[in-house]
Order: sequence, then structure tokens, then C-alpha cells
Amino acid sequence: MLKAYTDLNQIVTLKGAHQKDGRSLLPADLSIVSNGAIVFDEVKILWVGETDRFPSQYRPLAQSLKGHVLTPELVDSHTHLVFRGDRAQEYADRLNGVSYEQIAQRGGGILYTARMTNEASPEELFRDACERLERIHSYGVGTIEIKSGYGLNFDRELELSLTIDRLKKKYQNRIRIFNTYLAAHDVPASFSDSTAYLRSVVLPLLEKLAPSGIIDAVDIFHEKNYFSTADVHLLFSRSQELGIPRKIHADELNDNGGAGLAADHEALSADHLLKISEAGITALAASSTVATLLPGTAFFLGKPLAPARKLLDAGARVAIASDFNPGSCHCDNLLLVASLAAAQLKLNQSELWASITLNAAAALGMKNQGALIPGMAPRFSLFRTDSVSHVTYNWGRNLSVTLP
Amino acid sequence: MLKAYTDLNQIVTLKGAHQKDGRSLLPADLSIVSNGAIVFDEVKILWVGETDRFPSQYRPLAQSLKGHVLTPELVDSHTHLVFRGDRAQEYADRLNGVSYEQIAQRGGGILYTARMTNEASPEELFRDACERLERIHSYGVGTIEIKSGYGLNFDRELELSLTIDRLKKKYQNRIRIFNTYLAAHDVPASFSDSTAYLRSVVLPLLEKLAPSGIIDAVDIFHEKNYFSTADVHLLFSRSQELGIPRKIHADELNDNGGAGLAADHEALSADHLLKISEAGITALAASSTVATLLPGTAFFLGKPLAPARKLLDAGARVAIASDFNPGSCHCDNLLLVASLAAAQLKLNQSELWASITLNAAAALGMKNQGALIPGMAPRFSLFRTDSVSHVTYNWGRNLSVTLP
Repeated sequence: MLKAYTDLNQIVTLKGAHQKDGRSLLPADLSIVSNGAIVFDEVKILWVGETDRFPSQYRPLAQSLKGHVLTPELVDSHTHLVFRGDRAQEYADRLNGVSYEQIAQRGGGILYTARMTNEASPEELFRDACERLERIHSYGVGTIEIKSGYGLNFDRELELSLTIDRLKKKYQNRIRIFNTYLAAHDVPASFSDSTAYLRSVVLPLLEKLAPSGIIDAVDIFHEKNYFSTADVHLLFSRSQELGIPRKIHADELNDNGGAGLAADHEALSADHLLKISEAGITALAASSTVATLLPGTAFFLGKPLAPARKLLDAGARVAIASDFNPGSCHCDNLLLVASLAAAQLKLNQSELWASITLNAAAALGMKNQGALIPGMAPRFSLFRTDSVSHVTYNWGRNLSVTLP
Repeated sequence: MLKAYTDLNQIVTLKGAHQKDGRSLLPADLSIVSNGAIVFDEVKILWVGETDRFPSQYRPLAQSLKGHVLTPELVDSHTHLVFRGDRAQEYADRLNGVSYEQIAQRGGGILYTARMTNEASPEELFRDACERLERIHSYGVGTIEIKSGYGLNFDRELELSLTIDRLKKKYQNRIRIFNTYLAAHDVPASFSDSTAYLRSVVLPLLEKLAPSGIIDAVDIFHEKNYFSTADVHLLFSRSQELGIPRKIHADELNDNGGAGLAADHEALSADHLLKISEAGITALAASSTVATLLPGTAFFLGKPLAPARKLLDAGARVAIASDFNPGSCHCDNLLLVASLAAAQLKLNQSELWASITLNAAAALGMKNQGALIPGMAPRFSLFRTDSVSHVTYNWGRNLSVTLP
């Protein structure tokens, strides 16, 4: 069915950004159409231009959206939103000087969330996740990645992946969900080492899930005391054989060479990158792997932000995501965190918008969205304002509205 | 009239912080009473303790607030909320690499807001300010400082100070407003130099307003190309003679020795301090002047944050405020900005809470609020949660509720 919007104060097409593959951008690459109109069907955009030039044959379809700005859909490409149990006290403890290691020794951290998650019923997990998804959607996010990873045993990780699939089906008409398999999130205490857990749980479950086609990507926490480079090779090689894309938690706490590893394995994205080396930057710049930055986590943990400007200037493709999770970033508002971090990260306005739309979509392997040009998927976010600059200027206020 | 609340999951008394004058604090200085109760009349707190020990004579007054946490009232001690005209485009321009100086040359900056403000009617200014105050109050802020300073001529600065007074009277039963005179915010182009403007407008208007008693403090933007050290001496000396407290925009863009100047003049607060020197830190630590940090502005401008830890460790008293204004920080949510910045500023939980309650009140010369102990003013904020740690953990979500 054809639809058409007219009289939009601005359509942010990101046409220029799309042409440049979302890399280091000029401010002008927002490619704004003022007083814009757009025509689309279920699968693609057919026409974009000024309302004054709106083709007459579409006139009967026209819905006026005066007083609004249309942008490519906001995409949150890194979340851990299926979990039980908050970690507010841990956040306070960390402010009070307790280290991440001490928190882990006290039974906190990912393993605490895993314990809480394991104690919850599938129905409780599903209900909590729905509540979170509705809220995130109310901020204008239309495509969202959700990682499993708080089960950390065969049965519960299976259930988490199925829960994400259930969410995907429930929301399919409103929210596009990307199901990432992160059983390799942490190593349960019952395993002597990461490789043993990988071989006993992560890989066998992947084999079981792969044929169902519900897994959109695999992910792994590559870090000292978590999963080694050898583990990454093991998981990624098998994923590649199974035809499943790869993502990686890379170079967050230390420079572990994770960015280079991501590039070598043609991963969709390398995420975090607080400690990325010059070699890692060069490797990402030469690859199609998206550098996904999670500035909310740096704020939450009190760490310096990732070197966004260096990555962009080297030619890497940069996305920003929320990393919403109960432990290291309890912020579910992508637009808030990106707006707040933009000046610190030294992004210009086009780079900021590309990082939460076009490039975030690329981090999920979605090449057909993120720019409002004919042929691309009709995935939009709509804001009640007369200029896109207001969207990132009004910190903490939600200008997003539902599409008609 | 006596009132009493019981069954509060927590009362954050900040008793320890109060005893230490809000300086470098231990986490334990939150001084939490669990399952707490409190009795107060219009002017002061009479009793605080566990609900189990609630004095029987107050029983008929008891209102149960189970499921809530009571804290000292949130105080936003630095805002510029009476203005017209947004500067969203300027924010985008700055991201796009246009410097503050270039923006000023294009007619942007404070002088742009002054032009828009001068074109607005007093009624429009009042209405906009009311809308902003209602929103800020909905975040739990009960005491708020408002600066004049977007008139920049005698008549309009007079009107702005009267507008703030009108707001003060309108909201007196709900919000406590502190009226700061900041005619010395910028130098209008029609004046050859800052001192000429100070002598022609700022000082004469101060003389006119002082007898009415509506001015709670004077403030001045002490910065290269704005107001000089000699200007500060001139204004502060006269303010002191008139018995009006002093505040200063200090060491924001450059180290101008503003912190030392504030200490010398026994100012209530020195605000911004991004570029404060070691000597400035030492001077504030030895004084009663509160070091007011505005991390939202650093985020908005992409600058390194003020050295909070150094200030605290030296013995200075640190507050955090929003700096809500249309140009350099368009964020009106104190709790959001303080929560987001806390880990970056290396504040512990007690220091964080003291910075937005006890110490923010001190930055307004209010020594009788900011701790929930007998004798102090009954000024509270109430949050629907079972633990204070949730309030700063839930970024961007408002847990504040209206007091019964």
C-alpha cells in the first residue's frame, strides 16, 4: 500500500552520508530537504523531494506533517535488555570507590545479573523486556539489537535467544529486532576456563540454534579474564561456516587487539573501543567493520571516551549505541546519550546523525536503511519540531512522535 | 501546622555531610535512616528517626510513604531561565566546527538571546519562565536560582529582575526562588568597554533595585572580553556596602584568577571553574565560597570537566548546578546532569548528593536546609523507589513525585 507524507519542515535524507558510506562527513551531508514530501510503500521509498514538486498522482495519499521533521529511523545497535535484577547498589558502590574486580568478588557484575535472570521465569523476563522496548520505542528508536548473555548455561541461553525471538515476532509491525547470540558474555564460575565453557555451552547451543535461523549475529566479550583471542577465532570461524554474522565486545578495559580481530573476521561491528590502539584504528578504517561507540558506558564507569575523531579521521565508520544494561550503563535513551556525548566525541552534526541511523543500521548488517532516498526501506523517525537541530539540542526532552 | 511522614524506605539525612560542612565526604555521610519517619512544621524539622521509634503523640499525623525515599530538597543553584529565543542552530553550528567567536561575529551568543529577549513582551517572558519552572519542579527541584542578564540595558534588566520577583511570589508555596542580578552578563555592542557599561547601567540599576530588597545576590561574567577584575572589584565592593551577597562566573574559558577573587570577596559561590588554577583551588578551599560546577555546560561545549576531585581533596565545598540556558547548556534536568557526570567527576555518592542539596543551598546562602535533621527547614524531595541509589542509577527517568 502506498503512503505519502507532505509539508514536513525538514526531511533529513542523509543522502550524502549514504554516498560516502557513512564515514568522515561534512556537516552538509545531512542532505536536508526543506518543506519535504516522501512517498513509499511497505518495502521501499519511491520518491523524496520538496512538497512543491510533489507528483500529482500521489496527491490523494498525502498526509500533511507540518511542524515535524522526518529522519532516518533511530537504530540502537547494542543493548542487553533481557535481564532481571537491577544493579543500582553496585553503581553507588562504584562511585564510592569499590573496583569492578571487588564487585565481582562480592558476587556482583554480570554473574549477579545472570543469577537473577536464572531465577526469573521466562514470562517475567518477557514482560520486563516488553516494558523496556515500549519505552525505548517511545524515544523514536525503531530498530534495536538485543543480546542474550545473562543465562550463561545451555538451557537458559537457549531460552533467552527464544525470548528475543518471541519479542521480535510480537513487535514485528512496530519495532525491528535484531537477535544477537552472546552466550559468550562471561565465564560461569563452574567452568575452569573460558574455552571449556565455549566448547561445552556456547558452541553446542550455536549449533542447535543455527538451523532455526533465529540468530542474526554472534557476539563475544573479548577481554582479559573473559574470552581470549583463541576463543574468538573458535567462535567466529564456526559462525562464518554457519553463515552467521559476527560482532565483538572489543578493547573496552584493555587494548586486546580486538579491533584488528574484528576486521580480520569481517565482523559487522567492533563495540566499545575505549582502549583501541593506533593499529586497531587503522585496521577498522581499512575494513567494513563498524566502530560502535558506547559513550553512556564511559560516563557510567567514569572512563575517558573512545577516540571517535581519530576513528573518523582515519576513515572508519562510526556508530553510537546505548549499551543499555543493568551493570555498566543503565541508560536506555540512545538520543540522549548521543546528544550528550557528541561535543565530547568531536562529532559534527552529520556524523552524529549517521552514527545513530545509517551507521548503526550497518552495524546490524542492514544496508537498505539509514538514508531517505528512493529504493531504501521506509524506516523513519518523526519529531515534533521545525528543525533537526532541536532534536539533539533539547537534552532529556523527548520530541519523538509516532508515525501516522 | 504539624505534619509527619512514616514508613519511608529511606530518609537520606546527610547529617554527616552537614557536620562536615559538605566538604570531602565519606560514602557513609549519606547518613541514611531506613524505615524512617519525620515530623516537621512549616519552618523546621522536629524529629527524624526510625518508624519503630516514632513518638506516639505524633501518631494521628502520620502519613505512610512506604515505597518512597525522602532526601534533602534538590537545589538548582545556577540557571538563566528567563529568556526568549532558542539557539539550537548555534549548537549544531558549534558541532560543525564554528567557534564561539565566529558565532558571536555572526550575531549569535548571549547578545542574540538578549536581542530576542528584548523583542519579547514581559508577559511572554513570564509565561515561558513559568513553563520551564513547572518542568524543572517536576524533576524534584524545589529551590532554584534564576539570573537576570539577557536584557543588557537599564529598562529591560529592571524588568527581568522584576519578572524573577513575580515568579518568586507566584511560586512561593511550591518553589523557593533565588533572584540573582546578572546585568553584568555581557557587554552590549553600544558600549565602548565593560567598565562604561558597568558604570552606566549595572551599578545605577543595582542602586535602584537594592532598596526594594528583591535582589538576593549579584553576579558577573568575569572573563577575557567580558568583565575585568577591576569591574568585579567595582561591582562587589558596592554590593558588599549594600549588603547583597556575591556570585561570580569564574575561570570558565581561561584561568582569570576568578576563584581567588571570589574567595577574597567572600562570594557565596564561584561558578564554572573549568580552567581554575592550583592557586584558585587553594583559595576556594580556604574560604567559605562554594565551588559550583556545571558539567552539563562542559558536555554541551565539548570541554574537559572541572577538577572536582582536586577541589574536594583540597577541602573546597562543591556544588553542581544545571546552568540551564539557551546557549551553552540547554539542559534543565539537574539530577540527570549530576548523575551522568558523577563518575567522570570522581564524586562518591555522598559528595554527589551533597552537591545538589546541602552545598547547592550553601551556594545560595541558605544555611538552614540541605540536611534532614531537627532544626533545619522542612525542604525535601521525594522519590518513588526503595533505595536512593536508584535515583541516580535510572538515567533520564524521573522518579521524583510530589510531596503529599
